[in-house]
Amino acid sequence: MVELVENEVFMAFATYAAIVTLKMMLMGPLTVYFRIARGSFTNEEDVAGKSDAEKKKLLRSHQDVERVQRCHHNDLENIIPFFFIGLLYSLTGPELSIALLHFRAFTACRIFHTIAYIGALPQPSRGLSYIFGMLVTISMAYRVLSTILFL
Amino acid sequence: MVELVENEVFMAFATYAAIVTLKMMLMGPLTVYFRIARGSFTNEEDVAGKSDAEKKKLLRSHQDVERVQRCHHNDLENIIPFFFIGLLYSLTGPELSIALLHFRAFTACRIFHTIAYIGALPQPSRGLSYIFGMLVTISMAYRVLSTILFL
Amino acid sequence: MVELVENEVFMAFATYAAIVTLKMMLMGPLTVYFRIARGSFTNEEDVAGKSDAEKKKLLRSHQDVERVQRCHHNDLENIIPFFFIGLLYSLTGPELSIALLHFRAFTACRIFHTIAYIGALPQPSRGLSYIFGMLVTISMAYRVLSTILFL
Repeated sequence: MVELVENEVFMAFATYAAIVTLKMMLMGPLTVYFRIARGSFTNEEDVAGKSDAEKKKLLRSHQDVERVQRCHHNDLENIIPFFFIGLLYSLTGPELSIALLHFRAFTACRIFHTIAYIGALPQPSRGLSYIFGMLVTISMAYRVLSTILFL
Repeated sequence: MVELVENEVFMAFATYAAIVTLKMMLMGPLTVYFRIARGSFTNEEDVAGKSDAEKKKLLRSHQDVERVQRCHHNDLENIIPFFFIGLLYSLTGPELSIALLHFRAFTACRIFHTIAYIGALPQPSRGLSYIFGMLVTISMAYRVLSTILFL
Repeated sequence: MVELVENEVFMAFATYAAIVTLKMMLMGPLTVYFRIARGSFTNEEDVAGKSDAEKKKLLRSHQDVERVQRCHHNDLENIIPFFFIGLLYSLTGPELSIALLHFRAFTACRIFHTIAYIGALPQPSRGLSYIFGMLVTISMAYRVLSTILFL
């Protein structure tokens, strides 16, 4: 096993990064579920073999499908920077307890964000989990840049 | 050269990751090609210098452009998790033959997925390549979490 | 601190990768700013407590919000491949001066791309910064594949 993986901070990063990545991936099947449950498709070939009237009905957008897609897209916009910055951050040798705090806070924020988005919970629940998750990533980026700035 | 790159599993990961990333990047120029070929733009400044009637005609969406964009977006949703999970997986010291099986299967799935999407092949060709590619990533995530879980 | 981070090429990559990732993240708050400034929302819960007439007015798309979102999406499509390929590239042991040239050129392209997109500068300013940034990533991918090809 490569040396990196014996580093506890890196192991913690790998664990939480895998969890949030799996969470993000889950939005794909969830979109498919809503497409089928709500009868809302976008590709002609996905409704092949139906009558023309049925096709027209099925090839329509549905607000539930669009909501899951917006949630998925927000994940892409936030979990990807977390992975990039978190990976670099893990290599700067932070204290384990502080690193764990960052990884756990971000993971909790994004899981709560998904619940708030899909469940359409009243604001500012979704907004706060979005902002707080972003602040965690910015805090790690600050350490990366202040530790290994090389322009 | 850094030690990591002397590891055969990591070299294999880097090779296949670079290939699928280049494939994903190709969707950008392909979108531009369809925009020009089909005369479908979104930004006012992209149709500057045309008459008002022509502008109105050019600033319209076209189903071929949207199809490439959906394919590109599906790549983002699937190739990014593959990269994240695959990178961590490569560091857990898997057997080379099993790792190669994962990387090759995923790469084949995503190349086939693009052909099925752009060519509008009958389902379930696109659906199966989507699901199978996702299962490969989940299988790698399982190994990451079972090997280096550190919560 | 892990050995990787004592490598100057890797430090340079980490620095520029953190900068472009932060730039990409900034598009999120910028979208929120335009949503509030232009009064353009998509989620029912974001306009709770308003009258029905006001809700209908606020739940509309606005071209300025959509422009920032397209810019953000273009970042995802280009900065993510840069990170993936750049990370692998940094591990192939390139010369520092050549690596810096790649990282600086890409960063400059994407900052200029954002200015050209948000400011709606006349083409081909945006187009050229898009193409040039992509060529930088392709140049790094070429080195990755020619150095550590392992199929």
